[in-house]
Amino acid sequence: MDLTNLSINLATTRGSWGFAEAVDGCLKRGITAISPWRDQVAAIGLKEAARIVHSNGLRVTGLCRGGMFPAADAEGRKSAVDDNRRAIDEAATLGAGCLVFVVGGLPTGSRDIVAARQMVEDGFAAILDHARASNMPLAIEPLHPMYAADRSCVNTLRQALDLAAKLGPDVGVAIDAYHVWWDPELAEQIARAGRENRIFAHHICDWLVPTKDLLLDRGMMGDGVIDLPGFRRLIEAAGFDGPQEVEIFSAENWWKKPGGTVLDTVIERFATVC
Amino acid sequence: MDLTNLSINLATTRGSWGFAEAVDGCLKRGITAISPWRDQVAAIGLKEAARIVHSNGLRVTGLCRGGMFPAADAEGRKSAVDDNRRAIDEAATLGAGCLVFVVGGLPTGSRDIVAARQMVEDGFAAILDHARASNMPLAIEPLHPMYAADRSCVNTLRQALDLAAKLGPDVGVAIDAYHVWWDPELAEQIARAGRENRIFAHHICDWLVPTKDLLLDRGMMGDGVIDLPGFRRLIEAAGFDGPQEVEIFSAENWWKKPGGTVLDTVIERFATVC
Repeated sequence: MDLTNLSINLATTRGSWGFAEAVDGCLKRGITAISPWRDQVAAIGLKEAARIVHSNGLRVTGLCRGGMFPAADAEGRKSAVDDNRRAIDEAATLGAGCLVFVVGGLPTGSRDIVAARQMVEDGFAAILDHARASNMPLAIEPLHPMYAADRSCVNTLRQALDLAAKLGPDVGVAIDAYHVWWDPELAEQIARAGRENRIFAHHICDWLVPTKDLLLDRGMMGDGVIDLPGFRRLIEAAGFDGPQEVEIFSAENWWKKPGGTVLDTVIERFATVC
Repeated sequence: MDLTNLSINLATTRGSWGFAEAVDGCLKRGITAISPWRDQVAAIGLKEAARIVHSNGLRVTGLCRGGMFPAADAEGRKSAVDDNRRAIDEAATLGAGCLVFVVGGLPTGSRDIVAARQMVEDGFAAILDHARASNMPLAIEPLHPMYAADRSCVNTLRQALDLAAKLGPDVGVAIDAYHVWWDPELAEQIARAGRENRIFAHHICDWLVPTKDLLLDRGMMGDGVIDLPGFRRLIEAAGFDGPQEVEIFSAENWWKKPGGTVLDTVIERFATVC
């Protein structure tokens, strides 16, 4: 089986493995693409993480994550911009294909989502030069509307693409099936994302019924209701043939299993959706 | 304080009160508009419920709920259509302003949301004549995308309005702030709903941070992050000046309190959003 187009987002094995263990687990199974989180990189050290990536010829499909732009005051917003510049540097050091953005929700105490969205746009504008100088594509990940308050006020693919279009060609989208599968405009907006050359990453997992936790109850491919093969067909028809990156937040199930078991299951299920 | 424009969806006091107790509790406080659920009406009997409504001159802002059209087989879909015809009859007997629709999600075993949406359209088409003959407006309630799998595959106001436009002038929308507050197209689609004369009901509650349960952790107005006064301004600017109907599903908080306490709090908070 060809695993070239399978990438493991290291959140998936977060329950048992840090960066190095996860890389070992992937390599052992013939998986050569990963997408780590900044805290996982920090835990082992950026230099060591980069050494592991480069010495093994790993493909880094994205670094998670930049964003969290909105803040209650100017100081908080400046601090977010500074942190995002550092995230760009880290992504560049790792040779990541893109920096993935969870843009942030409402600042504490705010009920003004329109203002939060403006802060997101302003935040991107403030880091764009640095991203260009670092040759680092920025991928806005529209998050499911259930995260609008606390994680991301960019909640549809249309909205993410509209924002990217304002910002320029270095900004695109990370399309995660979990976040957008429900969208009545899904087919149309994926096609548009392809036409505009903005599909920088494609994430998968599954939507469980019932979903018991808003953040940490995502499912393994095949255990939920998303038509993942159909989703992939839309993505490929739009011209993206890069990896499907498996990202599963699952506190009560997959994070409790050994990383090896998780990866073996991912490989088995990947065969049904690729 | 003028409570003419306050309606109590009887889900809000479901934890402690049935239909008759809830009506008593409302009347005692000067509230004369309600929106009951079919099971609450059935528990007391349709005739008795209608007697209570008419003898007290109550306004019924909606009957909850019709819908749940998609089913795995033709028999299931026919049964849903029959049940919706009965719901129309019940709404007419109660003199409801509209029958509110939670249209249904994916049939068991299905991952085809496009097909489910077609079943919804077909279901509406099958009951339209009966609704017209009964002079009963049908209000599609777009539900938050987190319910796409199991409750409603109509998830945005734009989508609901597009569907209503296909079906005709007897079909409109119930706009619940909880379900649509996050929508980047909110202002534009509310304005459109007004232009097209399709705002049949306006529901409110609040989005809590954190939200601990996908279905039963809705908040009292003011306890969450929705800009409810701003939302109401959009609704009124669109030409709807009917009641704000308070609908709060809250298993661990409000449903555990006495109905009177809940209503007193609703009245107090309503003053801050009307």
